[in-house]
Amino acid sequence: MTQPLFDRFYYGGDWNPEQWDESVWLRDIRMLEDAGINEATINVFSWAQLQPSEDEYDFSTLDRIVKLLVDHRFGIVMATSTAAIPAWMARRHPDVMYADENEVRHHFGERHNPCPNSPTFRKYAPRLAGKLAERYAGTPGLVAWHVSNEYGAYCYCENCRAAWIAWLKNKYGTIDAVNHAWYTHFWGHTLYDWDDIAVPDKLGDEWEPGCATLSGMSIDYRRFMSQSIKRCFTDEKTAIREYDKTTPITTNLMSVFMDIDYFDLGKGMDVISWDSYPRYDFPASEVAMRHDLMRGVGGGKPYMLMEQTPSQQNWQPYNSLKRPGQMRVMSYQAIAHGADTVQFFQLRRSIGGTERFHGAVISHADTENTRVFREVAQLGAELKEHGKEYMGGRVDSQVAIMFDWESYWAMFYSSGPSVLLKYVDQIHRYYAALYRRNIQVDMIPSTTPADRLARYRAVLAPALVMVKPGVADAVDAYVRGGGRFVATTMSGIADEHDQVFLGGYPGAFRELCGSWGEEIDALPPERPVKVRLGDGGVAGAAGAGREVEGTIVAELIHPVTSRVIATYASDFYAGMAAATVNEVGDGKAYYVGTDLDTEGMDWFADVLARDAGLRTVETPDDVEIRVRTYDDGHRLVFVLNNGGETRAVDLPEDLSGTSVLDGGRIAGLFDLEPYGLRVIRL
Amino acid sequence: MTQPLFDRFYYGGDWNPEQWDESVWLRDIRMLEDAGINEATINVFSWAQLQPSEDEYDFSTLDRIVKLLVDHRFGIVMATSTAAIPAWMARRHPDVMYADENEVRHHFGERHNPCPNSPTFRKYAPRLAGKLAERYAGTPGLVAWHVSNEYGAYCYCENCRAAWIAWLKNKYGTIDAVNHAWYTHFWGHTLYDWDDIAVPDKLGDEWEPGCATLSGMSIDYRRFMSQSIKRCFTDEKTAIREYDKTTPITTNLMSVFMDIDYFDLGKGMDVISWDSYPRYDFPASEVAMRHDLMRGVGGGKPYMLMEQTPSQQNWQPYNSLKRPGQMRVMSYQAIAHGADTVQFFQLRRSIGGTERFHGAVISHADTENTRVFREVAQLGAELKEHGKEYMGGRVDSQVAIMFDWESYWAMFYSSGPSVLLKYVDQIHRYYAALYRRNIQVDMIPSTTPADRLARYRAVLAPALVMVKPGVADAVDAYVRGGGRFVATTMSGIADEHDQVFLGGYPGAFRELCGSWGEEIDALPPERPVKVRLGDGGVAGAAGAGREVEGTIVAELIHPVTSRVIATYASDFYAGMAAATVNEVGDGKAYYVGTDLDTEGMDWFADVLARDAGLRTVETPDDVEIRVRTYDDGHRLVFVLNNGGETRAVDLPEDLSGTSVLDGGRIAGLFDLEPYGLRVIRL
Amino acid sequence: MTQPLFDRFYYGGDWNPEQWDESVWLRDIRMLEDAGINEATINVFSWAQLQPSEDEYDFSTLDRIVKLLVDHRFGIVMATSTAAIPAWMARRHPDVMYADENEVRHHFGERHNPCPNSPTFRKYAPRLAGKLAERYAGTPGLVAWHVSNEYGAYCYCENCRAAWIAWLKNKYGTIDAVNHAWYTHFWGHTLYDWDDIAVPDKLGDEWEPGCATLSGMSIDYRRFMSQSIKRCFTDEKTAIREYDKTTPITTNLMSVFMDIDYFDLGKGMDVISWDSYPRYDFPASEVAMRHDLMRGVGGGKPYMLMEQTPSQQNWQPYNSLKRPGQMRVMSYQAIAHGADTVQFFQLRRSIGGTERFHGAVISHADTENTRVFREVAQLGAELKEHGKEYMGGRVDSQVAIMFDWESYWAMFYSSGPSVLLKYVDQIHRYYAALYRRNIQVDMIPSTTPADRLARYRAVLAPALVMVKPGVADAVDAYVRGGGRFVATTMSGIADEHDQVFLGGYPGAFRELCGSWGEEIDALPPERPVKVRLGDGGVAGAAGAGREVEGTIVAELIHPVTSRVIATYASDFYAGMAAATVNEVGDGKAYYVGTDLDTEGMDWFADVLARDAGLRTVETPDDVEIRVRTYDDGHRLVFVLNNGGETRAVDLPEDLSGTSVLDGGRIAGLFDLEPYGLRVIRL
Repeated sequence: MTQPLFDRFYYGGDWNPEQWDESVWLRDIRMLEDAGINEATINVFSWAQLQPSEDEYDFSTLDRIVKLLVDHRFGIVMATSTAAIPAWMARRHPDVMYADENEVRHHFGERHNPCPNSPTFRKYAPRLAGKLAERYAGTPGLVAWHVSNEYGAYCYCENCRAAWIAWLKNKYGTIDAVNHAWYTHFWGHTLYDWDDIAVPDKLGDEWEPGCATLSGMSIDYRRFMSQSIKRCFTDEKTAIREYDKTTPITTNLMSVFMDIDYFDLGKGMDVISWDSYPRYDFPASEVAMRHDLMRGVGGGKPYMLMEQTPSQQNWQPYNSLKRPGQMRVMSYQAIAHGADTVQFFQLRRSIGGTERFHGAVISHADTENTRVFREVAQLGAELKEHGKEYMGGRVDSQVAIMFDWESYWAMFYSSGPSVLLKYVDQIHRYYAALYRRNIQVDMIPSTTPADRLARYRAVLAPALVMVKPGVADAVDAYVRGGGRFVATTMSGIADEHDQVFLGGYPGAFRELCGSWGEEIDALPPERPVKVRLGDGGVAGAAGAGREVEGTIVAELIHPVTSRVIATYASDFYAGMAAATVNEVGDGKAYYVGTDLDTEGMDWFADVLARDAGLRTVETPDDVEIRVRTYDDGHRLVFVLNNGGETRAVDLPEDLSGTSVLDGGRIAGLFDLEPYGLRVIRL
Repeated sequence: MTQPLFDRFYYGGDWNPEQWDESVWLRDIRMLEDAGINEATINVFSWAQLQPSEDEYDFSTLDRIVKLLVDHRFGIVMATSTAAIPAWMARRHPDVMYADENEVRHHFGERHNPCPNSPTFRKYAPRLAGKLAERYAGTPGLVAWHVSNEYGAYCYCENCRAAWIAWLKNKYGTIDAVNHAWYTHFWGHTLYDWDDIAVPDKLGDEWEPGCATLSGMSIDYRRFMSQSIKRCFTDEKTAIREYDKTTPITTNLMSVFMDIDYFDLGKGMDVISWDSYPRYDFPASEVAMRHDLMRGVGGGKPYMLMEQTPSQQNWQPYNSLKRPGQMRVMSYQAIAHGADTVQFFQLRRSIGGTERFHGAVISHADTENTRVFREVAQLGAELKEHGKEYMGGRVDSQVAIMFDWESYWAMFYSSGPSVLLKYVDQIHRYYAALYRRNIQVDMIPSTTPADRLARYRAVLAPALVMVKPGVADAVDAYVRGGGRFVATTMSGIADEHDQVFLGGYPGAFRELCGSWGEEIDALPPERPVKVRLGDGGVAGAAGAGREVEGTIVAELIHPVTSRVIATYASDFYAGMAAATVNEVGDGKAYYVGTDLDTEGMDWFADVLARDAGLRTVETPDDVEIRVRTYDDGHRLVFVLNNGGETRAVDLPEDLSGTSVLDGGRIAGLFDLEPYGLRVIRL
Repeated sequence: MTQPLFDRFYYGGDWNPEQWDESVWLRDIRMLEDAGINEATINVFSWAQLQPSEDEYDFSTLDRIVKLLVDHRFGIVMATSTAAIPAWMARRHPDVMYADENEVRHHFGERHNPCPNSPTFRKYAPRLAGKLAERYAGTPGLVAWHVSNEYGAYCYCENCRAAWIAWLKNKYGTIDAVNHAWYTHFWGHTLYDWDDIAVPDKLGDEWEPGCATLSGMSIDYRRFMSQSIKRCFTDEKTAIREYDKTTPITTNLMSVFMDIDYFDLGKGMDVISWDSYPRYDFPASEVAMRHDLMRGVGGGKPYMLMEQTPSQQNWQPYNSLKRPGQMRVMSYQAIAHGADTVQFFQLRRSIGGTERFHGAVISHADTENTRVFREVAQLGAELKEHGKEYMGGRVDSQVAIMFDWESYWAMFYSSGPSVLLKYVDQIHRYYAALYRRNIQVDMIPSTTPADRLARYRAVLAPALVMVKPGVADAVDAYVRGGGRFVATTMSGIADEHDQVFLGGYPGAFRELCGSWGEEIDALPPERPVKVRLGDGGVAGAAGAGREVEGTIVAELIHPVTSRVIATYASDFYAGMAAATVNEVGDGKAYYVGTDLDTEGMDWFADVLARDAGLRTVETPDDVEIRVRTYDDGHRLVFVLNNGGETRAVDLPEDLSGTSVLDGGRIAGLFDLEPYGLRVIRL
């Protein structure tokens, strides 16, 4: 059963009225109402205003803000304000501030500044959350609790070190187990005492970002930090639950942000919410992938698009405007991928502070007479009319991609084979090829059990460096049961301590893939390798017989029980396998040893789709088709033109139906205007 | 009345004989005399030699240097030596050293090293200046006192923090006023106690250069630091004045150096002096602009060219030689823009120290038989004969450009819209277009009162982000009285606390410009916008009807009372205004929303010149014409070829006259040799 | 007399069995034996395992490793393990860790971490070395002692500062002598007390890498640090010698590593060993030069190739594979340049730690069935049969290039004229031109006495900035006696305190070169200068009369007694000398003022070769011919194809002979396969 997140479609975003004069508030509300806005996320950065000292709290301003919103029947996402600690607290209790990777404790400033293991922070942050819950639980229109904001920075202070050592004691029991897990005899790192353990930072074992003497240790520190941050969330959640048993509690995530294992954090969240800030030159597939990842973090349930900019950002090198219609189509893209809300940062531009040039519904011009306001209002009207209908649908996928934060970290710390080998890029390369065929994808954790894997016709695990206990078995069972599995260079090579499996790459997947990789050549940018594509064992795969380019790496693969589907056609390994497929039980395991170019990836996606019987739909560049499926069995088809050119779409018969927006019939060939879209009820 | 700075033309520069053996001194003097050198700047880095301990002073070496110079009738610029503090002082009184942006106190080393709020520094630096004045006041040939050297580095130590809090108390009175001025509720920065205030640095609110949580705070810190440094200057000046009531007191400036508000510092200086070190690839207009800025800092009075290199520098990536004649024409360029001296760093190359490869009159070859020496000597002979005649002239300008250090800072801290939007570049873009027409420009503070503005036919305020109290009114009065005013994207948008005016850009100038900017698009380098130029409301503007490119930003401008003079011709805002002009009273206000390319800027300068009735003179590339006007009414015309190619110049009749250098008549068409020049008495 | 280093050819490398399970050890040995490996370098990073606390030692694991190797008749290079100190030591005795250039003491981590002046380190490191020697002296097959590993990092702690001041007292006696040597009056650095002296680092006089207020001071700190590190080596050597009087003691060097004066360190080493890790895009000449430098550090004696990778590295941006045959030919290149061993890092890939992706004989595939293993085994078989024959030969050279670490440092600290002027590049430019003619080169210290110089027909001193006492006289005597000497821009300009000689460049060599340089222009990359080549005073020099390009710098040279051999043909100094030659006694001194392009360098090498009567051999690109000469008079000729293309070699008659590898005759024209080689007994 998939339920709509809320009982209406919330369309709103961050509103910080405590930053401007109270005389403006009502004007804001009226303008927002004109735009169809029905939700406000408040209290995100008010800790210092709410709590002037250790034992003093003042909710009067917030009371008035809440009352105004309630009076106007706005939904309220109530933040707990704990992302930025008050200046007085930093001064009187310096432990509350984080210490950077040089172990220098910062003084008050910036924003995501608390040490997650600070006793002061752990005392006052949940206390504030509790007081807020005590006061505002039951407020009419209370949509969700929003803990902190964009959790982030790691800390390297003495409190963290002590907590880390305790964490290690708990995890490993003995120092010898630590030595074994971390492979400490390397470079003479043998430990005899818990107290020998230092934090891995610039004064020690992570002398430059991504460099680590012992990746096992560095990955453990990341686990510890990720969990420390999660515990800050849990602290606040627990405090809130004392007074409010039902309102969903969330914190806003940042898609592929490396420092937190969102699958782990997500388990503690009632609802996933995230902030989408694509760069002006992101392809639509990059944004789509992030949506799917966030949906995956929530186990496939609908999620909140907590923040997006109505037009421009302020913190990128070139803060280009979203083109007319682009905000709308990006909002629909979110909905098509599973979002049940559309929210902005921010409802009004502030006139000071570092984000004063960040886009907003109400701009510095302070008028409704702006393109952005009109577009927001147009979307508001649409969502008012149709938003409810969009909510609650599943995104059924025949394909899953494993996304694993620990493999992300392992790749980050991998010294060799190439600096160009980056985890998210590797994932996106495969995602994009599927996306170009309008194949819907679930992003799943690598530890997904076999019976859940069995839902998918294909499971891809690009660069899944780390194979945690049970994973290889689950994948094996999945394939034997008829699944298609895809491993690539660096997949499967290491255990949960980032220690490499002997016997040839892809290590844990070697038997399954029926191949072993002998060496991994690193290809400098000026030296790609040629790859000749085979038919992949399926009839009619596009590109078969063609020669394409491989880049970044070239793994020299030996087929054992597998069949070669692509071969290198240049360099000394010309003739060796670049990709293989292995039949195992009722399924197949693919192994790909180089980063194929777009044509090569299209070939591979085509081979996989034909082999796995995946539904593909051809659409022009920029055009994306997604389907949300509702518990009552009906489906909505979203046809989105993410680009600035008119595109001719030829809709398959079975995706044709009635336009939700205007009731007309949509079928066959039609022109889709720039940033245009159709929503079709089947 | 504009007076010559001194009673003779000083031609000299830095001489550091205390660095080499006394036996060489007389030889130096004789060689310098051969080169026509008549001035030496001494004692720049001698503090450690002059003061071996807290209460011990030793002027014996300096006495001998001074005596030698006096005997040879050299002018003496006497530095106070306080730019580099002695090693013993740094060791015994660590507070004298600055703390960097990580709040790490440096130990002895480098050169511009004092903390401007160090009690130790504030005790000993003026004391040394006073002792020098006591001893050397009245020395024959004493030209000027030269306090410190190239004032610079900011400090972030505890003493500075305490002084800053005191400065803030004095400025704001209450912490609440600070909260309001700094917009502290942003990111939860609310302050309750003066002691909550930290310095904005890498451990706090300026985590990377140019990033600031609260730009109002960061700009205040810059004001405070700039004033702290100014007070160091004033400390020494006061100490000198106790013994020497008349000799001018200066410190050498660095043109567009960001960290000090030179308009403020300049107010305390008796005469402006500056150091001109263009990079090898600077266009001549960049150098010209800096001269005009320095003249403007001195209120238009003649100034000293305190330092330039005879040939090469040492600290740039590629320290190319000045070409034959280039040093001469650059010296004349300085004179043409208002310099009454020509001085070098340095008269002799040292054999050690980091500047040992910096150009000098006497090179390591230690002979007069060098190209550089000969060129110095040739210029020396010319200046001996004609220098006096050049002195004391005004540079009358029909156009002024507002240069505002606080807008410079505001732009530095502006997060968005584009990293390519840089203050000095924005100024130079307009300066260069005027320069190509030989339109003389005054660089003036933004706070220039209306009656002073009225001297100009046009006043430009490119990217004048910050509009301080009174400025908008003065500009308004100026335009109503018949002036032409130019604002550009980001002009006028913020008040003195860097808080944005609501109601649409250009904020404080919106009514005046009769337009409002709705959005500012940031253009990545690969994505310029097309702009169609109109006739600008004047007949015959070059380029009218042509299509040019706009880069960096594109502001979407709505004309209200204004007339559109350029429109975007691509992207979704094709057809919207890219530039407008508004008639107000007897004047006009222009508003330009994108960075036009050279052709576009030429069009704009042409429109403005025709509209404002500016005198323009056509010259080939590299050739510049400037006029100095003397109190007796006569004028000198400088025709300078700043480039390495022979150029054909066609001199207008009214700029023709007698050659100062050879008495011949200069008129009509003539060839100007590479780096050649003419000085014409009208 | 040149002796073979050892009584058999050692073929092996680093083996760290303490990092994996003992059950694998024997399997390792058997595989290594299959590959013809007969040596293992052990105990490189075991300090923490050997010494669990201050007074506890445990050699049991090492005993078993040694026994296994002895049983299998492996040669053993026994490291002392002191490169990475134990965690407990860092915790209990923090002085043992180095402080970085910000004077921040690091905590445990990384690897080359000790402070060379730490009392703790100086106590425990030699004690461990002594205990190892006591235990393992006399072990059958003990090849050498290997002290520490790749000595490196400088320290800036209080202990180092105190030791440095003591070192300075000893060197200079009085503070006044320091002031004079360091030219301290520059920027007011005059010192009155030894305690005024700070370490030159980022908090003081080296604010950025390569920037120095006083290069004399910074160079002295480098001398002090280099000697401090050397003393660490000597400490351990002395401790070893107490128990083992005969086994050679070495430490592995890193060719052009800047921080240690290897000529000085080399004097204390019984045998030179080094680690060769060329980047994938190094030309073969770069590797060749490094071999010659390392041989030179050992005074021309055979040396050990202590480390090279069998295939790929892990710490470069692109860790490309060595192509088939490339490891073999690189091994032979080492031998051809004087190596008497071939050793790898590493024999087995570890499964953890930062070097887990570094190439190894036994890969993660853990099988003999790999290309790399087969190639290692093939080479092993060859070396087993022929290796002994290769050993002990001299590399007789008619040409020497002076390589001077202090000039390297002086250039590093030179502020101006161009950032592109880099010491090793300057050396390599000349080396490569000789290499293209198969001219063998010795790399010698600049202080080589005249009678040793007299062995060479030509001596080059590119960019020999620093001329230490006696050097100019020795060079002068050498030239008068008939030698050819080559100086280039920046050669000869400074004394041992880096103070510039007056009178014109090249300073100490000005009389000898019969020329003086007036100015040094810096050429930005986009602005090369044209140079017209003369005949160089020899008949038939290739390229005479041609016009080539000069880059980086262009020195404006005046011939005095010299003859011009190349002139500038563009820019204002067209017609001035770009290079000269001066006849002095029976010899000649060349002076070259610009960085000639490849064609120009070929011309110069040709001129020099003809003039000096150097034997040259023409070979195609990538092909190198080297000759080792044995005490019995016989010679081996190595013909190496360092590239991936088949090349046609035309062997001169006198280099023809019998193939060592297959007994056939090799003469005349033949094809040399990619990465192919011939070894010919004459």
